[in-house]
Amino acid sequence: MNEARGGTLGVAVIGTGRMGSDHVRRLDRVISGARVSAVIDVDGERAERIAGGVPGCTAYTDAAAAMDAGGVDAVLIASPGPAHEAALLDAFARDLPVLCEKPLTPGAESALRVMEAEVRLGHRRAQVGFMRRYDTEYVQLKALLDGGGLGRALMLHCRHRNVATPPGFTEAMMINDSVVHEVDATRWLLGQEITAVSVVKPAPSPAAPEGLSDPQLVLLETSGGALADVEVFVNCGFGYQVQCEAVGERGSARLGDAHGLYVNAAGRWGGAIAQDYVDRFREAYDRELQHWVDAARRGVTEGPSVWDGYAAAAVCEAGVRAQSSGARTEVVLPARPAMYT
Amino acid sequence: MNEARGGTLGVAVIGTGRMGSDHVRRLDRVISGARVSAVIDVDGERAERIAGGVPGCTAYTDAAAAMDAGGVDAVLIASPGPAHEAALLDAFARDLPVLCEKPLTPGAESALRVMEAEVRLGHRRAQVGFMRRYDTEYVQLKALLDGGGLGRALMLHCRHRNVATPPGFTEAMMINDSVVHEVDATRWLLGQEITAVSVVKPAPSPAAPEGLSDPQLVLLETSGGALADVEVFVNCGFGYQVQCEAVGERGSARLGDAHGLYVNAAGRWGGAIAQDYVDRFREAYDRELQHWVDAARRGVTEGPSVWDGYAAAAVCEAGVRAQSSGARTEVVLPARPAMYT
Amino acid sequence: MNEARGGTLGVAVIGTGRMGSDHVRRLDRVISGARVSAVIDVDGERAERIAGGVPGCTAYTDAAAAMDAGGVDAVLIASPGPAHEAALLDAFARDLPVLCEKPLTPGAESALRVMEAEVRLGHRRAQVGFMRRYDTEYVQLKALLDGGGLGRALMLHCRHRNVATPPGFTEAMMINDSVVHEVDATRWLLGQEITAVSVVKPAPSPAAPEGLSDPQLVLLETSGGALADVEVFVNCGFGYQVQCEAVGERGSARLGDAHGLYVNAAGRWGGAIAQDYVDRFREAYDRELQHWVDAARRGVTEGPSVWDGYAAAAVCEAGVRAQSSGARTEVVLPARPAMYT
Amino acid sequence: MNEARGGTLGVAVIGTGRMGSDHVRRLDRVISGARVSAVIDVDGERAERIAGGVPGCTAYTDAAAAMDAGGVDAVLIASPGPAHEAALLDAFARDLPVLCEKPLTPGAESALRVMEAEVRLGHRRAQVGFMRRYDTEYVQLKALLDGGGLGRALMLHCRHRNVATPPGFTEAMMINDSVVHEVDATRWLLGQEITAVSVVKPAPSPAAPEGLSDPQLVLLETSGGALADVEVFVNCGFGYQVQCEAVGERGSARLGDAHGLYVNAAGRWGGAIAQDYVDRFREAYDRELQHWVDAARRGVTEGPSVWDGYAAAAVCEAGVRAQSSGARTEVVLPARPAMYT
Repeated sequence: MNEARGGTLGVAVIGTGRMGSDHVRRLDRVISGARVSAVIDVDGERAERIAGGVPGCTAYTDAAAAMDAGGVDAVLIASPGPAHEAALLDAFARDLPVLCEKPLTPGAESALRVMEAEVRLGHRRAQVGFMRRYDTEYVQLKALLDGGGLGRALMLHCRHRNVATPPGFTEAMMINDSVVHEVDATRWLLGQEITAVSVVKPAPSPAAPEGLSDPQLVLLETSGGALADVEVFVNCGFGYQVQCEAVGERGSARLGDAHGLYVNAAGRWGGAIAQDYVDRFREAYDRELQHWVDAARRGVTEGPSVWDGYAAAAVCEAGVRAQSSGARTEVVLPARPAMYT
Repeated sequence: MNEARGGTLGVAVIGTGRMGSDHVRRLDRVISGARVSAVIDVDGERAERIAGGVPGCTAYTDAAAAMDAGGVDAVLIASPGPAHEAALLDAFARDLPVLCEKPLTPGAESALRVMEAEVRLGHRRAQVGFMRRYDTEYVQLKALLDGGGLGRALMLHCRHRNVATPPGFTEAMMINDSVVHEVDATRWLLGQEITAVSVVKPAPSPAAPEGLSDPQLVLLETSGGALADVEVFVNCGFGYQVQCEAVGERGSARLGDAHGLYVNAAGRWGGAIAQDYVDRFREAYDRELQHWVDAARRGVTEGPSVWDGYAAAAVCEAGVRAQSSGARTEVVLPARPAMYT
Repeated sequence: MNEARGGTLGVAVIGTGRMGSDHVRRLDRVISGARVSAVIDVDGERAERIAGGVPGCTAYTDAAAAMDAGGVDAVLIASPGPAHEAALLDAFARDLPVLCEKPLTPGAESALRVMEAEVRLGHRRAQVGFMRRYDTEYVQLKALLDGGGLGRALMLHCRHRNVATPPGFTEAMMINDSVVHEVDATRWLLGQEITAVSVVKPAPSPAAPEGLSDPQLVLLETSGGALADVEVFVNCGFGYQVQCEAVGERGSARLGDAHGLYVNAAGRWGGAIAQDYVDRFREAYDRELQHWVDAARRGVTEGPSVWDGYAAAAVCEAGVRAQSSGARTEVVLPARPAMYT
Repeated sequence: MNEARGGTLGVAVIGTGRMGSDHVRRLDRVISGARVSAVIDVDGERAERIAGGVPGCTAYTDAAAAMDAGGVDAVLIASPGPAHEAALLDAFARDLPVLCEKPLTPGAESALRVMEAEVRLGHRRAQVGFMRRYDTEYVQLKALLDGGGLGRALMLHCRHRNVATPPGFTEAMMINDSVVHEVDATRWLLGQEITAVSVVKPAPSPAAPEGLSDPQLVLLETSGGALADVEVFVNCGFGYQVQCEAVGERGSARLGDAHGLYVNAAGRWGGAIAQDYVDRFREAYDRELQHWVDAARRGVTEGPSVWDGYAAAAVCEAGVRAQSSGARTEVVLPARPAMYT
């Protein structure tokens, strides 16, 4: 963006599926200092329909064309994972700030290429959409750990539960789409890399679709010797629940418990459980996007980096292998480029 | 009891209704160091039936006869309120330790006569059945207040909810049978007397029977300037709930919240609410009775005194007047006999 | 605003104290679709300093001059209460949408004049800053009550606690600045007017400044026969706590309990209590302002109305009288103008 | 016991350490229908001192002599583990009901011998001291699982935390003394045997004594395909905490969360954590012992069986091997004798 700091950030949103169209709404109605100047989708009709609802927004089927059309100061990538690499490289070529929904790319190899491209660019231009870092309770837990309130963290106990999976959901997606959040949260909360992954599978729930061993227990070992266990249960039936208890030398802290309105009725006390991630993490998405817009208007890129996206991809690859082999699988990362430290 | 400390306390239980027969079971099966040597009920057949289930227990229709029959070291009064005064005086005449279910007697005047009789006896022989003083959370709250953890207590917010009232339950019984517990708890927790009572009635719940203005808010003012508000709601429908929050100069503490098993299911988090006092206060009853038995075996009487029973009766009388008049009603007590300080 | 729906709303912010400058920040950095085009303060230097930090913002010492200067599509009043009436009338004269921080005006008489002016204007132009209506838990409670989940509401138990009062805080301010929120929340949650107020004062906390009888219990009776009791304790020492339990025919629901991170450490379980309203209600303020901006951009005014501001003022006047007299004080309102139904 | 059902059970208590002397107190003061007729300790002075405080109790240094001395109807074994086998066989030889504190014996081999002896006897005579089966919340969880409220159980997440270990506490004791409770709880809650054990060790807490890798994560696989993960952390510093979340097909349920008095003070909400097992499980011990006494007076033995003690010993042996090897270690049990089904 060449304008002064006060200018409004023109954003091109690539992908207009559930996540993309929600980001269009968010940029248009919720976020301060940004506007949606372009939407891009291979489905041109869909792009036109979304663009039609936003003043001053043009529809495209080609991301590069949109980036060149003027009025685009930044790029938000919410297309399917296989399209991410090209869009990221296009944005790097124009030195545009990018917010890329997770996963950065569908595998560690492509993620590494993206990282190398950004390193060649010489400065950070991409933020990866690990929005839990913007959730109030995660932020509180991070602050507590960093402040030493629990002593050194020894273990994390994580729960990641979805009501049910959509058709076509595969076992690998339990790692790549679900546990990837715990992978990033573990790395971020502890400030350590993950060095090995194991997966243990109990007898599956009858609610799990054919071919999906659900739930699973994923063990993550870190470079600092901590251990995270992650229950991933994507057909739990009762709600969307993300919990994490950090156990330190001197105490433990748990996030994601029930809160909000507390009701006594019909012989029960309690309250409602969120039913999906929109319900649970709406404000984290708002904060993430506002943070990215604010940084882009200041000319910088902050938040989860391409390194974070790459490291998560490498851990997930190991996790998928561990799912198949049943064996502890090590994760080996190259040296972290200085740009990301 | 003339036997050595190690002897088993022979107890005569007067009244074999719900409460009396439960106490028979408790003395027989739960409490250490006691046995039921006699049960007394004007309904002789009923008394025989209960006695038949307890080894070494004899049935009577007359309390005095039972007390004279040998093997009776102590008396537990669980008959209807109007029968309490005579039974208490009979026990005092024989210097037997008594546990008298609340209310001590049905009114302040008769309670005063009982107190005068015990004062003439020259030592305590009766404990009144205010069992909340034996509930774990009440004991914790009392300890917190006495230890100064909250500073001086300024207010109490109390809730007393029942699922529904039995036929024949009158508005006065909301005070005499329900709020009487909050009256005693307020006096005990704060170590102060209650000096005035007011009652405010919102529009009644449609679930309330004809003629019962339910719920009500009862305000109790104390000699130390504290204020207790009591929601009494005896047809709340959803459970039996007794809560109390003490607000002090430096903090507040609440008891009676949900606890126990925490369940996630069907989109809700939470747990079950107790449905009656047996469910909620079973252990308090056990502790109360064990404490009384232990003291009786040592030859002493402790716990809530006849003065406590009398003071509660005086407050309840004022409360019933305040229900009718809608006006703040003062409570005037005589000087507390030295025996009760 | 003459521009199309997509235009950015230019807002003049009157008053640049704690609340006003926070609203300037919020409009500039958080809210979508608005910008601060003018700030007004009798302290011109202060206005200049605030304006200097916002691109395209001009400082004024006179509100009317700012409203006439162009670029002002809407007015946010955050000046001290006595200045509200004139600013509201100025905005009405120009048919500008207004968000007026509570209180609408310092008394019922002036509030009535404002209402009459808006009625003459013929349509709503002012929203009053009762931001609790935008708090997630209040919204959940309102939905639960409106949906009949608890049956008809019979009682509200409210707690309003502040850590400590600033110098100069008077007893009347306990009603006008603190309880006013419970007054509005009661009216809104129940959809009923408040018909009488009583105040009961326990012996004050030693932490209360000379001349302040703190805490107090305020009883609000409503046109539908419900009863709200409000503990107002503005020097409670331990935190900022706003709680409300609605008791209905079939259940109860409580908001404002502890939530967020749950910590086990040093022999205690629990978490942190918010220390002020910014901490507790930040998101409610954000939502309130976004809602007002969105409505203004659509050319309408929604949210709490001038009638709500007037009714709250009338109840507070009665409350302050009840504080002095110790007597139940009735509140009589004129008929509600059709415009507000 | 040859006496009628109403008789008092004379109990010989073997071992007068912390647990044994607490059981003496419990039998003497808390439990109904029992008396301590003998205490046995190799430290005769200690036995005399304890016996001196209990009316009608005789001190012995030899268990068999005590069992033969008359007045002994039942035996409670609370001596160190290596002494259990002989005492059990002595009791079996006299057909006396036994309550044996866990572990049944120090290893699977000796436990098997005990089981074979009881099988030869032809009926159950020993109950093993897995007192969690008597804890209210465990009982509630068991009932919920058995009633199908959560569907089939898939996973258990268990936490077992102690403030600190006494001198001489070894890593094997983390399994044999601590995790043994989760071993039994898992078997009992699920009604399944444990078929394999794995142990994962994060970097130890600096609070752990030299040579103790603390905390550890123990994984238990069951015959029904369920998976239990157990955090055992015996130097956690902040409290004694036992938690268990059962995850079923349709919901989850957690026990062991904070409860009791809820305090707001000094900027924190929350309450106190129990500091040791006496604090946390006092009532479970009471119920366990009362249940055993009641059954013995009826001439039967119920509760956790010698089979349960043997199976736990076999799992613990595998667990200790898994601690050393780092490998998943299978548990192979013989067929369960018909007497225990």
